[in-house]
Order: sequence, then structure tokens, then C-alpha cells
Amino acid sequence: MNHIKNHLLDIDHLSKDFIYDFLTETKKIKYSPETSKNFNHEKNICALFYENSTRTKLSFQKACSNINAVFHNLDIQTSSVNKGETFYNTIKTINSIGMDLIIIRHSASGAPYFLAKNTYSSVINAGDGAHAHPTQTLSDLYTIFEISNKFEDLEVSIIGDILYSRVARSNILGLLKMGSRINILGPRELVPEDMVDLYSTIDKSYKNKISYYEDFEKPILSSDFLIALRIQKERFDKNTDLNFNTYKTKWKIDLDVLRNLKREDVFIMHPGPVNEEVELSHELVHSEKSLISKQVENGVFVRQKIMEKLLNEK
Amino acid sequence: MNHIKNHLLDIDHLSKDFIYDFLTETKKIKYSPETSKNFNHEKNICALFYENSTRTKLSFQKACSNINAVFHNLDIQTSSVNKGETFYNTIKTINSIGMDLIIIRHSASGAPYFLAKNTYSSVINAGDGAHAHPTQTLSDLYTIFEISNKFEDLEVSIIGDILYSRVARSNILGLLKMGSRINILGPRELVPEDMVDLYSTIDKSYKNKISYYEDFEKPILSSDFLIALRIQKERFDKNTDLNFNTYKTKWKIDLDVLRNLKREDVFIMHPGPVNEEVELSHELVHSEKSLISKQVENGVFVRQKIMEKLLNEK
Amino acid sequence: MNHIKNHLLDIDHLSKDFIYDFLTETKKIKYSPETSKNFNHEKNICALFYENSTRTKLSFQKACSNINAVFHNLDIQTSSVNKGETFYNTIKTINSIGMDLIIIRHSASGAPYFLAKNTYSSVINAGDGAHAHPTQTLSDLYTIFEISNKFEDLEVSIIGDILYSRVARSNILGLLKMGSRINILGPRELVPEDMVDLYSTIDKSYKNKISYYEDFEKPILSSDFLIALRIQKERFDKNTDLNFNTYKTKWKIDLDVLRNLKREDVFIMHPGPVNEEVELSHELVHSEKSLISKQVENGVFVRQKIMEKLLNEK
Repeated sequence: MNHIKNHLLDIDHLSKDFIYDFLTETKKIKYSPETSKNFNHEKNICALFYENSTRTKLSFQKACSNINAVFHNLDIQTSSVNKGETFYNTIKTINSIGMDLIIIRHSASGAPYFLAKNTYSSVINAGDGAHAHPTQTLSDLYTIFEISNKFEDLEVSIIGDILYSRVARSNILGLLKMGSRINILGPRELVPEDMVDLYSTIDKSYKNKISYYEDFEKPILSSDFLIALRIQKERFDKNTDLNFNTYKTKWKIDLDVLRNLKREDVFIMHPGPVNEEVELSHELVHSEKSLISKQVENGVFVRQKIMEKLLNEK
Repeated sequence: MNHIKNHLLDIDHLSKDFIYDFLTETKKIKYSPETSKNFNHEKNICALFYENSTRTKLSFQKACSNINAVFHNLDIQTSSVNKGETFYNTIKTINSIGMDLIIIRHSASGAPYFLAKNTYSSVINAGDGAHAHPTQTLSDLYTIFEISNKFEDLEVSIIGDILYSRVARSNILGLLKMGSRINILGPRELVPEDMVDLYSTIDKSYKNKISYYEDFEKPILSSDFLIALRIQKERFDKNTDLNFNTYKTKWKIDLDVLRNLKREDVFIMHPGPVNEEVELSHELVHSEKSLISKQVENGVFVRQKIMEKLLNEK
Repeated sequence: MNHIKNHLLDIDHLSKDFIYDFLTETKKIKYSPETSKNFNHEKNICALFYENSTRTKLSFQKACSNINAVFHNLDIQTSSVNKGETFYNTIKTINSIGMDLIIIRHSASGAPYFLAKNTYSSVINAGDGAHAHPTQTLSDLYTIFEISNKFEDLEVSIIGDILYSRVARSNILGLLKMGSRINILGPRELVPEDMVDLYSTIDKSYKNKISYYEDFEKPILSSDFLIALRIQKERFDKNTDLNFNTYKTKWKIDLDVLRNLKREDVFIMHPGPVNEEVELSHELVHSEKSLISKQVENGVFVRQKIMEKLLNEK
């Protein structure tokens, strides 16, 4: 990877060309699995998850099996979440035991960077706080790429909790970088006030490529893909009227919404797990235009390709 | 397997011939391990256990190692037991990640059928509610078969909790199918009232092959094997006088019971874990006629053979 | 191993020559990994941990991967710690499932011996109560040996909780056996009253080789290595004034302590995890003379060599 060498910590620092190449290489191992690397059990991968995640961990585990590397799971009890020096010493211990690659998920933004600075292992960020989730974004980009074969001229709507979501932040950056237009939809309380300025700081050209909408009509009419995000109960500010009920009344997407706008042809995405009938209707989740299962399926190949590259570079 | 193709969900639908062949094949890999299939880490098996079970899971894990397949454990926190749609979405996720075989244990009868209908993977039922536990039954049939080389003319007594036990239900069906006679022993509260009718519905010939007894003498005098079942505290109906103490006073089997009937030669079985001095005395559990350790040992080879067959058929 | 054949239960019964050979062989696989045995997934190792330990378990897991054996983790819920007969039956079950090697950690001293008597598997004691922790001791001996190439004429100070520490007990025995002199330092409440007599019973020559000190000066002036031990809150006797604060006021070692005695050149060891600023200062833990990371690193090779020997002997 071309950020901090040998790590995948965020999507920001990957170049557009790098991402295009990466997606093409991922397509190759998906459809010609025999071209993927077989490490013959000579590489050791350690999952260090400070937050629970069955789906992401299992995805990495399967990807690890596909390249025949050894998967170690370090059970961090949710109750004994380590901080400060103790996290540092945990890192030092794993480093001395000698893993080739560490996959970390942590509630603190930046934890994977701290790890990367203090280990000889390669590091993959599997989600840190509300900061980044680059393997999810690469999976989502891959899923879009497999359908559209491009990102320029595409318009993507991202709906829901933008403020607290690491998927939102990584996906917006990834899609802007690749040249797509982004519509942000959702309650004002869940969208950063200075959002457009925020992304303009990264690249001036992003200013005209991202807009916020408080209703469905315009953005859904012109979007190629809708990405709904998971709403987390614990995020609702107690000082507002926002809750599951008020959210779904206004923002739940179902077939009726799409039919009214004559957009039953739009593709539906969600990083999972879905709160059905809150973000999306059950019918829509399991409809023909839903790419949710594809996102999970592609996630394995994306993670496999990332691990293959990082382990090969070492 | 010949039920729903590529799955092992219950014992009912396996034919007598199929079972005989299966037991013979299992014997072959037990005594000539080199004849078993080596999958070279190219098959992925996922354990999806919604109920805890160290012994059954470890047995599958060892069997998986014997055929050199990759074992993935999906940690389902007992506290977050999923239901309804969420169970469906968990299934969809595993399906998209792409396992070759899923081993499921679930407190809800029928969950493995629901899984089998909604996945491309093969499914093994490792116990569902009070419904079925086919790998335990095949292990028990194998253990009996290794000693007797037949099932016809055999008489087997099954003692204890028939009502709530998936082992009881699967074992009774398996043994009747193979041609053995069954004696049911235990407190009336733990035996289904219409038991004989129940099994006659499946096959008329079973009517004369299964009987209920409220004491030991007749059935133990004529049995070749005694299978004691685990009594679970939480099953005792609060409206009856039945509890651990009243149970063991009448139904605990020890060497004295067998000596009085001059049947120290009868074989003792139990699916484990035993509540010692409740179902069986410690002395009997560890006596020469106890097959309990054999059942565990054979369970590995039976599971190995099942997985080998399911993975080969795919 | 030469104690109970095929097990590593304690350090006591290993001969001095055996240990020297073992350390030399460990050095060989550390620096020429290709000379280590590859078991091609044909050996099964089971971790049976009744006490949590991420670092020791991960170390064994990595060592197991290095020799290409299969690692099984038997999840024992801390809440369901088994005792008496139940522990016996757990052992019998694992024995019937058929592991080649069982690694056990248990809060009860002697549990690994009980296991070794009741299984066909090889057994490694990964820590039992306050009794023994032989793989930690062999790692510590190896770390000292790699630096000094000898044990005779060495002086080692062991600081802190001697009374409740299995590492202390095993390390003292190991170092005395190898011919080193031992200084014990720490609060009287955490040192067995009859300590010198205790070790003299094992070998008369030990009487003059172990001494207790109630302050730093003399022992630190003459020591080659300082081994600080972990202080556990729960060990503090409620009837004494001893607590984290009183302990660290008197016994915490930092660079000032060493500078005052002109002993910045002494090597610092600790079995981990360190309570920083209690047993050792953060600065010292991460200083150039700290061998703590080396101990962890070497632990993997020591465990790898032990497993290789035990599995080869079978």
C-alpha cells in the first residue's frame, strides 16, 4: 500500500490509480481464484478486535483461509478494554510474539496508527471509532465498479448517520477521490454542519461534488446507487426528538418511495447489519436491486487481495 | 446424504441401507485413517452454535482437522441470540462469505431446516431444540454396531428424560429403523403420553417394538444396552414433585441395581455430560461395561465421515 | 522430557544437563527456523485454560503455527470453572476426542498432574495456582543464557510477590539448579517465612545460594539480572498496610534507583504484564537494558521446542 508503507489505515492516502489497479486485481482473484497467492501456512495474521464484529471478523478469516495463512484471534473481552499504556504494552507483546499482519478494530479513532508506529507487523484498520473503515469502502467501491466499470459521472446518495459513521467518512472520501458526485441525505442532527467545507479542505474540487439534501426527491431522482447507513440507537442525542420512530417515518426507504419517484432501477447498498424497517424495508433489502449480499461476498475478495499485497511486500 | 441433498438435518430420512453403509465406511476411516479424504485446506467449515457446547464443538473441530479442512468458529454470544429476521440475515451473511459447510446448534427446533433452505452451504444439525441430534445418534448407532455387528434382535433401554431430549427422539427413531426393540424407562412426567402412537404414525411396524415401563426389572433383564439420558434441572415442571432427588431415588442406575438383576454384563451408554449419582453412579460411569468414552471417541470418526461425504458431494 | 515421560509439568525434575541441551536446541530453531519440525497438520494440540491469559495462549498458538500443528482452543467460561469429578470428566472427554498434546492453565496447584495421570495426551503446564510455570522459567533461562552463555557465577535478584507467584517458585528453582545465586527482595508479607529452609530441603547446597533482603542496596550492587514480578491487587492481605501505594513507594525500581547505585548496566526482566509505575517505571520497562520484549519473543521458541520434543517422543 502506498500510505504508511505496508499498512492499510485509511482510504485518504490511496491514489486513484492505485485504487483502480487494486479493484482490477481483486476482480482477477474473484473469478480466477487459482491466481491468488498460497502462503502455505507460513504467514501469521492476528485479529485484535476491541469491538465485537462477527461479520467483519469472519470475512477476514475466510479471506485468510483463501490465501492459506494462519489466523489467530486475540480475544479481547469487551469488559477489559485496554487504554493508554496498557494498549501500548499489548502491542509490544504481539510484536514480540511476531505476527506478520495485525487486523485491528478499536473504538478510539487513531488506534491503528498508534499500532502501526509501534510494530514491525503490517496493520489493517478494520474500523476505528468514527474515523475510518477502509476495507468496507474498498468492498463498496469494488461492488460499484463491478456493475458500472467506472466512477466518473456516477452519482451516489448516502443516507442516514453521517456524523458518527466511519463507513460514511471513508466512503465519501473514496467516492470523491474516484470522481463520483455525492448526495448526503438524512436528519440535520446526524450530518456535520461544516461537511462541505470539511471535504473542500482535502481537495478544492470536492466543493462542487458534494451536497446535502433534507428530502429524497432530487437526490434519488439522479442517483445511480443509494447507500443507506446503519443507525445506532446509542448515537441519538438525548436533547433532540430524533429516535428510531422519527427517523424511519422520514428516512426509511422502501419500494413505495422508489416507485413514487419512478426509480425502482436504483441500486441499494448497506454496510450491514441492517435494522430492517428502519433504514430499509425488508422487501427492499431482499429485492433484486439490493447489492447487500454482493457487498459481503466481495468483501472477502477485497480483504484477501489486501492481505496478499501486504504480506507479499514484507 | 439422502434427505435434503447435501445436508444432515435429521435421522428420519436416512434409509436403513444408507446407515449400514455409513457405519461400515466410518469403521474403515477409524481403523485405516489414511483412507480418509484430505481436503488440503480447500474447504471451509463454520460452526454456528447458538447454544454452548464444548464437547460437541471440539469433536467437530477434531474431525475437521482429520480431513484437513478449515474450521471457523462464529462466536454467538449467548446474550445476543438472534431471532426472526436477524437469524435470516446472519444466514445470508455467512452464505455470502461462502462456507462449504455450516454446523448449527440452535435452541429452536427447525432452525437447521430454515438455514438449509437459505444457503448454498451444506448443513449439519448439531442439535436443534428438543427435535433432533443426528450426529449423536449416528455415533451411538456406530458404538452399538461395533460391539454387536447388527441391530435386529437387539433390545435397548432408554432411561430418563424422553420428553425434552433431542437425543432420545433421534436415537429411538434410529434404533427402530435399524430393527431394534426399544424400552422406555423413566418418570411419567418426562415421557410423552402418546409416545407409542407417535412412533406408530411414522411406521406401523414400530407399534410392537416400543414399550414404556415404570420400573427397571423387565426391561433391564432383557436389554443388551442401557442408554441413560442427561436430566436437566431447568426441565423439571414446577407443578410436579419431580426434582434431582426424587429422580435419582427411583431412576439412578448403579452396580447394585444391575447385580440384583444379575445384569452386570449389560452395556451402559450416556450422551454426556453425565450428572454423576443422578442418572448413573460414578462407579458405573467408569466401569468396564461403560461405553461412554467410546461414544465420544467414535463421535469424532462419525462426524469426520459425515463431513467428508457432504464436502465430496458438493 | 525426563519427568513424567512426555509431559512438562514443572521445572524441578529437569536435569541441569537436560536444560543446557534444551536451551542450545532452542537457540538453533530461533536462528535457523528451517531446522524445526513441520508436523504437516498431523498433530492436534488443545489449549485448556481455566484462567484467562491472552499473552501465554497467543505465544503457544504462534509456536504451534511454527511447527504446523493444529491448535484447538477449548473455551472454558470463567464462570463455569469445573471442579472435582467434572474436571475429571472434561479430561476424559478430551482424551477420547484424541488430542496429541494438552496445554493446561488452572487455578488449582496440581491440576496438570491430575490431567497427566488421566490422559494419553502429552501435557504442558502453562501455570497452575501458585505452584509452577515451567515454560515461563525456560523462557527466562533462555533469555539469560543468550546474554551470558552460563548460569554459574551469575547473581539474580527476584523482586516482589514471592509468596503467591508461580513464576517466582519456578524461576528460583530453575536458577538454583543451574548454579546461579538468588537474592529475594520484597516486603516480608510477600515472602514465605521459611523460604531458605524450603529450598534447602530440595538440595542442601541451595542453603548458601539464596538470601532475603529488605532493601535494594546490597543485592542490586551485585546482581547481573533483576527480575521484577507482577503484583496482584487481590493478593494483598487485608490485615496489613500493604497496597499498591505502599508497595511502589518502597519497591518500585526506576532509573534513579539504578543511577544512585551506579547500576544502569543491570538487565531488567519481568514476566508481564507489568503494572507500570508499580513494579517498574515506564522508562525502565522500555529502556535499552529491559529484556521484557525479548522474554516474550523467546517464549515462542521455547514453547515451540517443548512441543516439538513432546510430539516427537510420542
